[in-house]
Amino acid sequence: MINIKTEYSLKFLSEYLDAKLIGNANTIIKGIAPIDSANESQLSFIHNPKYIKHLKETRAGAVLLNQKHIDSFATNYIVVEDPYLAYARLTNLFVVKKTEATISDRAVIGKNCKISNLNVDIAPNVVIGDNVTIEDNVVINASVVIGNNAYIKSGTVLNSNVSIYNNVQIGCNCIIHSGVVIGADGFGFAKRKDGSWSKIHQLGTVRIGDDVEIGANTTIDCGALNDTIIADGVKLDNQIQIGHNVEIGKNTIMAGCSAVAGSTKIGANCAIGGFSVIAGHISICDNSMITGGSGVASSINEPGVYSSGASGVVPNSIWRKNVVRYKSLDQMFKRLKKLETQMEKFTTTDNKELENVL
Amino acid sequence: MINIKTEYSLKFLSEYLDAKLIGNANTIIKGIAPIDSANESQLSFIHNPKYIKHLKETRAGAVLLNQKHIDSFATNYIVVEDPYLAYARLTNLFVVKKTEATISDRAVIGKNCKISNLNVDIAPNVVIGDNVTIEDNVVINASVVIGNNAYIKSGTVLNSNVSIYNNVQIGCNCIIHSGVVIGADGFGFAKRKDGSWSKIHQLGTVRIGDDVEIGANTTIDCGALNDTIIADGVKLDNQIQIGHNVEIGKNTIMAGCSAVAGSTKIGANCAIGGFSVIAGHISICDNSMITGGSGVASSINEPGVYSSGASGVVPNSIWRKNVVRYKSLDQMFKRLKKLETQMEKFTTTDNKELENVL
Amino acid sequence: MINIKTEYSLKFLSEYLDAKLIGNANTIIKGIAPIDSANESQLSFIHNPKYIKHLKETRAGAVLLNQKHIDSFATNYIVVEDPYLAYARLTNLFVVKKTEATISDRAVIGKNCKISNLNVDIAPNVVIGDNVTIEDNVVINASVVIGNNAYIKSGTVLNSNVSIYNNVQIGCNCIIHSGVVIGADGFGFAKRKDGSWSKIHQLGTVRIGDDVEIGANTTIDCGALNDTIIADGVKLDNQIQIGHNVEIGKNTIMAGCSAVAGSTKIGANCAIGGFSVIAGHISICDNSMITGGSGVASSINEPGVYSSGASGVVPNSIWRKNVVRYKSLDQMFKRLKKLETQMEKFTTTDNKELENVL
Repeated sequence: MINIKTEYSLKFLSEYLDAKLIGNANTIIKGIAPIDSANESQLSFIHNPKYIKHLKETRAGAVLLNQKHIDSFATNYIVVEDPYLAYARLTNLFVVKKTEATISDRAVIGKNCKISNLNVDIAPNVVIGDNVTIEDNVVINASVVIGNNAYIKSGTVLNSNVSIYNNVQIGCNCIIHSGVVIGADGFGFAKRKDGSWSKIHQLGTVRIGDDVEIGANTTIDCGALNDTIIADGVKLDNQIQIGHNVEIGKNTIMAGCSAVAGSTKIGANCAIGGFSVIAGHISICDNSMITGGSGVASSINEPGVYSSGASGVVPNSIWRKNVVRYKSLDQMFKRLKKLETQMEKFTTTDNKELENVL
Repeated sequence: MINIKTEYSLKFLSEYLDAKLIGNANTIIKGIAPIDSANESQLSFIHNPKYIKHLKETRAGAVLLNQKHIDSFATNYIVVEDPYLAYARLTNLFVVKKTEATISDRAVIGKNCKISNLNVDIAPNVVIGDNVTIEDNVVINASVVIGNNAYIKSGTVLNSNVSIYNNVQIGCNCIIHSGVVIGADGFGFAKRKDGSWSKIHQLGTVRIGDDVEIGANTTIDCGALNDTIIADGVKLDNQIQIGHNVEIGKNTIMAGCSAVAGSTKIGANCAIGGFSVIAGHISICDNSMITGGSGVASSINEPGVYSSGASGVVPNSIWRKNVVRYKSLDQMFKRLKKLETQMEKFTTTDNKELENVL
Repeated sequence: MINIKTEYSLKFLSEYLDAKLIGNANTIIKGIAPIDSANESQLSFIHNPKYIKHLKETRAGAVLLNQKHIDSFATNYIVVEDPYLAYARLTNLFVVKKTEATISDRAVIGKNCKISNLNVDIAPNVVIGDNVTIEDNVVINASVVIGNNAYIKSGTVLNSNVSIYNNVQIGCNCIIHSGVVIGADGFGFAKRKDGSWSKIHQLGTVRIGDDVEIGANTTIDCGALNDTIIADGVKLDNQIQIGHNVEIGKNTIMAGCSAVAGSTKIGANCAIGGFSVIAGHISICDNSMITGGSGVASSINEPGVYSSGASGVVPNSIWRKNVVRYKSLDQMFKRLKKLETQMEKFTTTDNKELENVL
């Protein structure tokens, strides 16, 4: 969608959401803002119950909310089942996008490429290899480099300075942020007798489904023999590392700075918190949730919420001592166990002896 | 500053620092080196007391030191209160910089841009969008891409392959290293009933103050509704991830590979060690120090030094056992508590019984 | 090597490996695949014993294996001592590479550069500074930026969007993946009295040996005074951060997302697992292995396998309790010790008293 204007009447917005409007349909909305700072020409929303208290005093021109939060306060309401989702949909209308698509004469396009002539936008200094296909409505920003034989499906946006290696396939309506590298060599070497490493050339590629978003400076390696696969609807945040031959299932979401080592399979509808690391050659079942900062060392076979790590800061002076103790935690356990044995034995023996005495 | 030459007399250097010189003012200094390897044409400094022993034997042409370390050794001294800070200031003189500023005819500049004609240097293959302002003395290296409506204040340097999204504002005298991405979309999605994710378009931007340095491949996301804010004097190392709507206070310094999740506020004058992760929607007060590798899960309201984690390696065979014990640490605690109760009760009971007997 | 074709007879492949062939020398091999999915025109290999069971049923046109795994199954064998290393070597033959080297007229090359005219390939939109040397057979992909005085030795490949700062030296036959930044400023500042930071200009550079591979979006900072050094044969995975003045010894291998803080020296033939963080100003001896996710806080002086951390997920409800206990682990230790003392004293005392009684 291309937004020429970013002003809408409440009538338009409620119809866009197919939602009930309570209030003045002619009110003009020029933006979206948090409930406690929105002004008369801004719309807000109530998603988190702790913000309901602001409803009384908000200056917002309108509020997206659920039926159950309607009250007699003096603003306009758009009534929806899921205000957060409705807010997400409305953000579409307030994005300013380029209105004209052009293929820059300062872009370099290789031999035998198939570039759609329907609304494709290619910026200056883009370099596209040979035999590349670019479908309708694709946007390629400046300094993007695309290797030979790549395939970019309709509606996908590649932001500036993205690097796409040979043979990579990207689905429809994806958003790839700046600095992303897709299809670089997986990390594979075989050790020679003299200790040096013989490179295992990585012969697979990366296949990315539809509606995938990939955050800035994230890297996804090509497969060693088979391909690395990112399914439809997957959302990856910034600075994530995906190793060779990883497979990530549909609609799985992963927060920033996480890493997945080679050949691991992550199921569909998983949520992986930021700064998590997932070992190689394991599998994580559908609907698993991993909280941020966790290290997953073995497969997860039952859906659930999983965690690891020793997060949560304490004053450094306390932490230093805890770190020392952690290093001998197994010894602590054994000493505890010995004490339990002594206690049990001692209690029994002693009682007997006492019984004898008494 | 532009250094045509990088040779200076000690007279010049001591005057540059406004410091006392003890020794030969005509000695020529051509570089800076550590105390144990500096030669006759190099200057060194004594910052860490453990290096004082080298003063006796150094071949350095001069040494920056504090009054208290002066001794009768045979080299030249520049006497300053803080030798490390003086060293930092002198490094200015030994950087070789480009001497001519030009706007390359191979740069692509959009419509309605305001580009200062005072000493602005724009390299080949830079692509600048529409309505961009570039102030005096700005240096933009090759393959930098700058979005529409961006504003780059005077004296700022953007190194090669930096990506700046639309609307981003960068203050004076900043240094942005290669591969940095500023203003990419924050990570925001609302779940649809079918499990897929509706994108929340990120409508804010990023505002960066003066004298900020940002390390290679660091990423700073734009705000969802309001802006992400980096205050004056902040120093961010390489590969840091800053989520949407984060605010970082004045002169706070953060080492490499750390991550700050969305909407967190970090105060002024904080120091965050490398490889730390800070949860979203919390606040960290001014003058907090977080040691490297920590995970901050909740707000910090008192200045101090904080840490978390179980760092510090041990042989793998021991660690494997500790990991197992950690997984049942709460059970260990409960067994310990039970033992304490038994011990207390047993002691009391037993003593009573013994008293009866004796 | 340039592969025009990627089809070979088993005769050719066994001679390439200088290995014994058992079977039909005329069989044509067009690719490499895992043992359980290879077809008649693909070669496979047996490296991990757990795959031996597939030998019975594989459709592979040939299998690389060790003498000890030969059996009477109906396919062709190439018999080698180390099948994994032989597989690595054969992947060389199945990489499709560009067959013509050209220096694009859309590359920008500075003054006084020495560019070999032997098979050097420079893509469009490459920007090379002044006084740069590029030796034979170097490949520089699109949008790479190389600073002044850099030196790139023969056979090295720089993938798209790589940033090389001034003065950096890269050896022979290196592979540098997209988004890598080499030579950005190390993170060095001296605090001023007002709390602001004075930049320590980084006057060293980065020197990289021969046969080094550097993964996508990895960053290697230049030295403060001396240089940062990466020795021959080192392999760095994606998104690794190497601080200023780090030295990494020959053939050391480091997996993704690891970080090494400034001035640390890592020996030769080390293996560092992914997501590890190594503190600054320490040294790690030759032949050390650090498992993934470890935090190395002090020097390692004996070869061995080392680990730290509390990885390995458990259900979140259990983990939450463990995290609380970890914060007072030292107190747990002290309570345990007190119990031990009580137990010992109590046992002794009690026995004595009992002896008295009895």
